[in-house]
Amino acid sequence: MHSIAIAGLGRMGGNMARRLVARGVKTHVWNREPERLAPLGAAGAVTAKTLTELVAAMPAPRAVWMMIPAGEATETLFLGLLSLLQKGDLIIDGANGHWRDAVRRAEKASAAGVNFLDAGVSGGIWGLEKGYCVMAGGEKPAFAGAEPFIKALCQDGGYMHCGGPGAGHFTKMVHNGIEYAMMEAYGEGFELIKASPFGNMDLAGLAGTWNRGSVIRSWLLELAQNAFDKDPRLEKVSGVVADSGEGRWTVEEAARLGVPAPAIAAALFKRFTSQDKDNFGDRLSAALRNEFGGHGVKAR
Amino acid sequence: MHSIAIAGLGRMGGNMARRLVARGVKTHVWNREPERLAPLGAAGAVTAKTLTELVAAMPAPRAVWMMIPAGEATETLFLGLLSLLQKGDLIIDGANGHWRDAVRRAEKASAAGVNFLDAGVSGGIWGLEKGYCVMAGGEKPAFAGAEPFIKALCQDGGYMHCGGPGAGHFTKMVHNGIEYAMMEAYGEGFELIKASPFGNMDLAGLAGTWNRGSVIRSWLLELAQNAFDKDPRLEKVSGVVADSGEGRWTVEEAARLGVPAPAIAAALFKRFTSQDKDNFGDRLSAALRNEFGGHGVKAR
Repeated sequence: MHSIAIAGLGRMGGNMARRLVARGVKTHVWNREPERLAPLGAAGAVTAKTLTELVAAMPAPRAVWMMIPAGEATETLFLGLLSLLQKGDLIIDGANGHWRDAVRRAEKASAAGVNFLDAGVSGGIWGLEKGYCVMAGGEKPAFAGAEPFIKALCQDGGYMHCGGPGAGHFTKMVHNGIEYAMMEAYGEGFELIKASPFGNMDLAGLAGTWNRGSVIRSWLLELAQNAFDKDPRLEKVSGVVADSGEGRWTVEEAARLGVPAPAIAAALFKRFTSQDKDNFGDRLSAALRNEFGGHGVKAR
Repeated sequence: MHSIAIAGLGRMGGNMARRLVARGVKTHVWNREPERLAPLGAAGAVTAKTLTELVAAMPAPRAVWMMIPAGEATETLFLGLLSLLQKGDLIIDGANGHWRDAVRRAEKASAAGVNFLDAGVSGGIWGLEKGYCVMAGGEKPAFAGAEPFIKALCQDGGYMHCGGPGAGHFTKMVHNGIEYAMMEAYGEGFELIKASPFGNMDLAGLAGTWNRGSVIRSWLLELAQNAFDKDPRLEKVSGVVADSGEGRWTVEEAARLGVPAPAIAAALFKRFTSQDKDNFGDRLSAALRNEFGGHGVKAR
């Protein structure tokens, strides 16, 4: 590929473009809301206000990395790009999309002679500095075209061609499922410590200690230490844990494939409970205790 | 403390004694089976064949670190040491014991004027080289006496005085509960990958990639890569996962304290299933499917 563009300059896309520029890669950028373009332009990227302008400014063969929310938004952008790009160009889908959408898009792109790569990107807001981790799926020419740019984005060794179309997003989905259960594991552990007779323990200190030589050391535990450093008892953080789709898909796939995944499922369902603390299931359980045992019910 | 002994030279105790010796600490050692003494003697430790001999060889005040299996064995050793040690000496319990036993022992030792510290040790067989992580519980004089030795055993910053008697073993128990759920999370994730349409993926490569910049990077994931490097599809490893008590206690404590711990509980119960694959619950479920729907039952 002779040129790369990042389409979508949110938290992830903006930082990815910054990292490419910082690594000396000539980087084109586009964003639906043009006010995000100027800071990237100042950082050294070539800005475009429309997709037409973006594609026209890029020498062929072009690689355009879509980094906008999965679903409708990505589909619209994908179709728009496909109508503008030429045979031999490449579309990379970096969103947390469903792997079946990636398979479908790869087929559609292929029919137009355009390569397609689904690329799961992990690393969050720390990727700009530390490098991302990329899980890629697609045919070999698609991966080969993208590899130099992926390499610039990632830590050394921090990317993998996981397989054909869909493999990248499937792998990223599983990554996020694992992440749900790991976060839940730490959440349960620290809650147990806090609820115990030893509950006045320094939790930031404990996270830091565990990260120095214990079996459960990890990057998430480093982030837990950061969080406790800022707010030792998390008094400013409410326990509503959002979920953005990949955990649900992981459990769907586990059910479809007949793979037991009780810890990931428990973590996902606990998030649902956190989102609906007065959920109907609990209300029915309270009502049933009242029905059979005359136990008091708390009025809403 | 003027002297330290390690009592119990299994995988953990033996390596801990080696690390102390390597750090220039004069280290006494004792083991029930005397054949383990010679290698430690060759490494530079002062060996003793009996507890009486051990205590007699150590200048007071003495610190004796018990590193043998929790339960009966530790209790017997504890009582033996208590009958030999003097006022101002210190017993450290490094086994994965129940925190309530630590509280009881601390009281009993205190009545004899002996200090007591419960110390959870993490790091496994890698601790010798990389340093351990120690979670300690006990009164201040107990911790102060042990600290120089703990410091020699641990990574920089890898230890903590978690609180009064029992706090060390409680914290180690929670650590192991978190470990169960993390291991289960990775287990579920890699099984999903393997069962998927992308199941021929290089799993060692994937673990290595995830460890370079992804959100789920951890030491356990490094160990997973080691395991896949040795046996890419784990064909030599049977899926029977032992448990050694701390996971059970974590779930017991969660139930006692009213703390939701569904991921740790799921991981523990999945281990039980792995230990009894033809468990009675599954046999009843199969029988019930036959009763109501005439579904076939597989004979034993």
